[in-house]
Amino acid sequence: MGIPKPTAERLARLAQLLEQRSDPEAPVSSAEIEYLTGWPSHTIRKDVSALGAGPEISTSTGYHPQRLSQAIRSVLGFTVEDHNCCVVGLGRLGSAFLEYTGFNGSPFTLCAGFDSNVNRVEILKADFPLYPAFKMKEIIPRLGIRYAILCVPPDQARQTALRLAEFGIVGIVNFTPVMLSVPPGVEIEQVSILDALGALAARRAIHERNDAREASIRSEK
Amino acid sequence: MGIPKPTAERLARLAQLLEQRSDPEAPVSSAEIEYLTGWPSHTIRKDVSALGAGPEISTSTGYHPQRLSQAIRSVLGFTVEDHNCCVVGLGRLGSAFLEYTGFNGSPFTLCAGFDSNVNRVEILKADFPLYPAFKMKEIIPRLGIRYAILCVPPDQARQTALRLAEFGIVGIVNFTPVMLSVPPGVEIEQVSILDALGALAARRAIHERNDAREASIRSEK
Repeated sequence: MGIPKPTAERLARLAQLLEQRSDPEAPVSSAEIEYLTGWPSHTIRKDVSALGAGPEISTSTGYHPQRLSQAIRSVLGFTVEDHNCCVVGLGRLGSAFLEYTGFNGSPFTLCAGFDSNVNRVEILKADFPLYPAFKMKEIIPRLGIRYAILCVPPDQARQTALRLAEFGIVGIVNFTPVMLSVPPGVEIEQVSILDALGALAARRAIHERNDAREASIRSEK
Repeated sequence: MGIPKPTAERLARLAQLLEQRSDPEAPVSSAEIEYLTGWPSHTIRKDVSALGAGPEISTSTGYHPQRLSQAIRSVLGFTVEDHNCCVVGLGRLGSAFLEYTGFNGSPFTLCAGFDSNVNRVEILKADFPLYPAFKMKEIIPRLGIRYAILCVPPDQARQTALRLAEFGIVGIVNFTPVMLSVPPGVEIEQVSILDALGALAARRAIHERNDAREASIRSEK
């Protein structure tokens, strides 16, 4: 199969976005996907046509979300599997995940938490076991944990990420502001409040620039 | 100036990413930008050429990050301004921002927190004032707050977002799993742990598929 890797990555992400839509039947246009992802709409159309799927994925007003996501999963050959995850670092942010209910019904299961502070591990309550950090080496392989949510203090981020990779973690959601470098085969997804605010401010600046331009065009008339 | 809106949005986001690099002098290639953003590298090259910037933004091995981000900001006509932000909802996640130090040195200032629980507002400590939620209408305009970090329980998300828009908020970082609909002119940036884990799982599935294909090619030889 000849789908290039960047196309496959965009399609995989697209399948995921489509499956999160509140109405799986309402058609979605490539312009709407461009708005959600930032990918140019002609790239989206090219990616989708690379799937070689039949006409059933399209409607007169856009793609059929459920059929398109199924076509993507079938062509890329991956299904929604169950994945075990852990939280590493149980400070304010990390411990917020202990009561997070959003994992229910998702393919992800939170099944362990770790913190270097043994007291904290004993005091906090969760529906799954919490361990001192030195147990990561034993617990991560035993529970088959593949993904970690990293919430440790910044000065511990790099070292902890390297240890997680060593113990078999293949993907890290990085809530610390530190840029991590990990061995090949380990993926990082950065989650940053400053990135999110920056994206809002950039979009806002563009709107204001466009409004100003329209106002100046109107005043010239 | 004829830069289309999607191009301007990508460029604004790119400027922001470039400014976060640990080494502002190390050249960055369009392939690396593709990896960070998911945008095809030919789109990135086309977007950058739409700037009409001089040769100083390029080096023999890629773009010069600092010069490219300056060119983007100068052409798009926006600079890094100071923005006042608030946290709305001071449960475990929201209160984690009260001790977050990452805003220092950024263009964003956290200057208020709100919660519908008056007790919680009185008990929590922060370097900025915390208010009961009914004061949003008064405080948001008075402090010139334009961005909100939304951390309320899911069942309050939609209603709170609409009220924030009404009181003058132009951008919301949405930490709730609820899809928000807001009036035109208000931007939403969704931050989701499930999105982040899903992106990791999708990238991982593609790697495993490629590894399996390479192994089968080798075994055929």
